[in-house]
Formats: sequence, structure tokens, C-alpha cells
Amino acid sequence: MTLIDSVLNGDRLALARLLTQIENDTPDGRAALDSLFPRTGKAHLIGVTGAPGTGKSSLVNQLALHFRTQNKRVAIVAVDPSSPFTGGAVLGDRVRMKDLSGDDGVFIRSMASRGSLGGLAQATAGMAQVFDAAGYDVVMIETVGAGQSEVDIARLAHTTLVVEAPGLGDDIQAIKAGILEIADILVVNKADRPGVENTEKALKSMLEMAHPTQRVYLHHGVPSPLRPSPVGRGGGGEGNMWIPPIIKTIATEGNGIAELAGQIAKHAEHLRVSGDWAVRERARLESEMETALQERLMSQFRERVPQTRYDEVMRQVFERSLSPGEAVKLLTNGRAK
Amino acid sequence: MTLIDSVLNGDRLALARLLTQIENDTPDGRAALDSLFPRTGKAHLIGVTGAPGTGKSSLVNQLALHFRTQNKRVAIVAVDPSSPFTGGAVLGDRVRMKDLSGDDGVFIRSMASRGSLGGLAQATAGMAQVFDAAGYDVVMIETVGAGQSEVDIARLAHTTLVVEAPGLGDDIQAIKAGILEIADILVVNKADRPGVENTEKALKSMLEMAHPTQRVYLHHGVPSPLRPSPVGRGGGGEGNMWIPPIIKTIATEGNGIAELAGQIAKHAEHLRVSGDWAVRERARLESEMETALQERLMSQFRERVPQTRYDEVMRQVFERSLSPGEAVKLLTNGRAK
Repeated sequence: MTLIDSVLNGDRLALARLLTQIENDTPDGRAALDSLFPRTGKAHLIGVTGAPGTGKSSLVNQLALHFRTQNKRVAIVAVDPSSPFTGGAVLGDRVRMKDLSGDDGVFIRSMASRGSLGGLAQATAGMAQVFDAAGYDVVMIETVGAGQSEVDIARLAHTTLVVEAPGLGDDIQAIKAGILEIADILVVNKADRPGVENTEKALKSMLEMAHPTQRVYLHHGVPSPLRPSPVGRGGGGEGNMWIPPIIKTIATEGNGIAELAGQIAKHAEHLRVSGDWAVRERARLESEMETALQERLMSQFRERVPQTRYDEVMRQVFERSLSPGEAVKLLTNGRAK
Repeated sequence: MTLIDSVLNGDRLALARLLTQIENDTPDGRAALDSLFPRTGKAHLIGVTGAPGTGKSSLVNQLALHFRTQNKRVAIVAVDPSSPFTGGAVLGDRVRMKDLSGDDGVFIRSMASRGSLGGLAQATAGMAQVFDAAGYDVVMIETVGAGQSEVDIARLAHTTLVVEAPGLGDDIQAIKAGILEIADILVVNKADRPGVENTEKALKSMLEMAHPTQRVYLHHGVPSPLRPSPVGRGGGGEGNMWIPPIIKTIATEGNGIAELAGQIAKHAEHLRVSGDWAVRERARLESEMETALQERLMSQFRERVPQTRYDEVMRQVFERSLSPGEAVKLLTNGRAK
């Protein structure tokens, strides 16, 4: 039996092995993605992002437990783009094991930063596809922080949760404003902490500011090939727009989890009714296509242009007798056209 | 007189106009970068990054005033990758005008997020080149936050300052750990605030943890063409290593600025003596080359493959009868090889 067959048969060890191949971007991993691809497109991909200290991991755990009561199979990909030496991912795993271990309907995989962050987003996308093909109904993708890497990873998701918590400092709001644009649902976790009203109020007023922007997206959101559309947030029309709700939770006590899960289901329903589910799938596939295309063109270039020739041109760039733009023209004009 | 001539003659309006062309990535802007390129390579590029609320902008202002006392011409590029509707960049400009306006030796340009973040880093690089060619001795590139975009922008700089402040929340340390890897100098601003000892202590212990990693960089840091090397932090050899100093400042009162400027000069000296200045220049040019090459290959592909053909293949991907990887092979194998 091949590794892929074993994965499709529910072999967890085989699944873990395949995920490692995806993470390491091996030729076998790539081939597996190709052959699993026709089986994908069923899972609900949920992105969960937020600053450290917001209690994201507990929230994801509680959501997983909740989905399990609905008999859904749940996969969690925990991505930690911060430095490898923090050990955050490993610690998170250990905490999780306590709640979710021994349940065959749950699979948790964490991934620390390795190589480029672009690579991280790509590996995450690959893993989500494997889980999807392997019959997991829900794939939660958890990321730390609010940088571009999180935005890239959130782009994968059908539904993106942005998690906040009271008392993490008011100055962080400038960053929050950026992250709001990717939020489908806002969660104020640790809602028993002082300052929760302020956090909620700040989010509300930022939502109101963000609103016009979202409107604009609606009318220019038609995806064009080769150029991934801006993540098409918002619904299919004026009367059908999704306004991100703000949900308060206390994950450690399970408070608000059912309501949050309800909003997640409602958002999925909204995506399907408005046609946005398909729009997001397409945008995702287009951006995946573009990445694959770039890689391919670059490797064909490497085959075509001898290293010595490249080094010679690069030397002229280092000497500043040739600009990078001119150098590229020189290297790509010789042939083909 | 051409726009470029005017810029080289010190015409500030022409400079502003050229910067706009660079920001908008116009053909004229690109041509200008090509023709200015031989004049670049002299300026000291200083990256300044840190979370909102750390007082980065005041610090940059004070450093600018200090460099002016040394008769250096100073350019500031303030990059705000957060959402355009925060208006942070504009506000920052207004505050700045008070201190630095009317001084012909200073030029300030701010740039809010527009389009992709990759585009932002590219535009920043282009602007830095223009300032460099126009005879600015110091170019400070200020970015908000600690995400991938900041890391990309920091990659441009010869010297990167990471700014912290006491009391912004302990939980943020996980992110700090990642950002430490790009720091050449750590600044604890607002050093009159309570908690400054804790912030300093936390940074110190993280530096100690980061140390082995830096060592590793030293020995594997040889840049290879087409693959930009990891930002080669650290010196040219064991006995010549740069360990990021921690400098306390109170920017609003000018405290610690002279010491900070001294460390910046010391770092530049270290880069030159160890040979790292050239290493960083090369790494930067290589990564610029790679970006330009990718763009070029993609536009050649667009010329070669008719849109209808692309759309047809993309349709099969949407139907999941073809994986993105297979689709790319199909589109790129027909010819050349």
C-alpha cells in the first residue's frame, strides 16, 4: 500500500509522515499533493490569528472539542513564525495533548518557522490540502501575531478569526487596524479581565472605520488570472454583506464557545449563499498557481542560463556598472524573446 | 533639464516627484533607477523598527537632528504597512515638520501601505537608492511592527535598530525573539518609564539565547547566486563578532541620542572592517536581482501564453481535475524546455 493509500485509510502515522514531506517540500510530497488534489475542496478552513497572550491556543482547543460534539473530524495546524528558539510550538503541543489526545477524530500538527515565511505559507496550504483530502471536516490554522505571514496564511482560510484580549496595551491598535481587514469574526477572549469594555469599544469603532473600505472591495473584487484578487472579504452584494461580529469568550472556562461556533457556521453558510465560498477558493487556487508558476519559470531559467554567465553579470552589478534591471534584461533577452 | 538632472542638482520638488514615480513603479521611475544606479552605494542605510508606542518617530527625529550637527544630509523614509485608514503616516509627518522643517539637509518621505507588502519593500529600496544617488549621507528607514514586511525592509539596511519600550506587555516577547535576529542595536526608549529594568533584562537574556544562532550564521553565511543568503548578521570571524548593544534613550528629551549615534557609527565601522558591509550590499543586490528576474520571467510568460489558454487551464484547476502543479507543467512544457 502506498503512503497516500494509507493516509486515505486513516493511518495516522502515515499522515504524520506525509505532513513532514509536505513541510520539507520533497518531490514525493509534491507528487502526493498532485494526486490528492481532486479529493480536496470539502473541508472548512478556519484561520485563527492574534497576538501572543490572547489565549488563541486554548480557544482553538475548545473549538475543537465543540466540533467533536458535532462529530466533525478536526485538524489543527499551529504555525509559529517566531524564532525557532522560543520553543512555543512545542510547548503548545504539550498543553494540547492533555485535552485532545486519544481522540482519533483530532489531529494536531505544529510547524515552527523554517526557511522563508513564503515557504511557511506554502507548507501550511499543502498541509490543509492533505487534511482536506484525508476527510477532516474542519481544518483550523492557528498563527501568532499580525504580520504579513499571518495575512498570507489567513488568505487560505474560508473563515478568519482574529483574537484579541483586554489589557495587551492600547498602542497596539494601529496594527489591529490592519488585521481587521482579514477578520470575519472578532473574538475578545479572556473576557473576564478588566478592560474588556474598552477592547470591545475600540474594536467596534475600528470596524465602523473599516466599513467603507470593505464596501469598496465588493465592487472591485473580481479576480483576474495571474493577479490574485485582494482577499475578497465581504458578501456578494449590498444587501448580503457580512459584518464581522464581535464575540466575547473565556476559553479556559468554555464560555462563549458555542456562540462562537454558531457564528463560524453562520459565516460558512453566508459564504455558500453569497457565492463567496467559490470566490475564495478560486482566489486561493490562483495564488497557488502563481507561486508554482514562479518557481517553475525560475528553475527553467536556471537550466537555460549557465551559472558562470549569471555570476559574470552579477559581478557587474556588484561593481555598479550594471543595474539589476539592466542585468535582468541582458540575461533574459538573449533567447526565446 | 531632465528630472534626474534636477534631482542631482538638489531640486527638492523634482526629488519629491521622482519618489512618487518610484512609489507608483512607473516606467520612468524604473528608468531613473537604472540610470542613477552607478551613483549609489555611498549612503549609510539605517533601519529603525519597533511596535507602535515605542516612540520610534521621536527617536528618528532626534537622530536626524544629531546627524545634522555632524553636517550629514539625512533622508527619512517612514513606512507604515498598517491600514491606510489609520492616517498614522500623515500624522507622523505633521509632528516631524515642527522639528525638521526648513532644513534643506533633511528630506522626509512617508509611505502608507499600498498594494502588496512586497511592493512596499521594493518601493522602499528604490527610494533609498534615489536618496543615496542624490547625495544623502544617511537614509533612515522607519517601519512599524515586527512582521515579515519589517524584516524585508530591514534587510535593506546596513544597520538595523530595534526599538522597545517598557510597559508594552510581557507577552509580546515571543515576537521580539524573532525580531532580535535582525537587530544590530537594541534601543530601550522611554527609559524613564517604570519597568525599564525588566525590559532591559528580558532583552539581555534573549540576546544570550540568540547568540548561538548568530554563531551558526557566521559559518554558513556564504551568499549563493539566485538564493539570497540569510541576512548575514554577525562579523567576519570569531574574534570580530558584533554583539548588539542595548542603549537606553529618552528620545523626547534627547537623552542617550549621542550614545546611540556613537554605536551606529561604531557598527558602520565594524561592517567595513569585517567586510560585512560588502556582504550585505551583495545580499541586497542579489535579492533585488531575483525580484526583477521573477517579474521579467512572469511577463515573458504572459507574452508567450495566450490568456485564453491560461484561463482554460485555470478552469480545470477550479474543477479540481488538474492540480496547480500539473497545470504549471502543462503551461510551461509546451515550448522551450
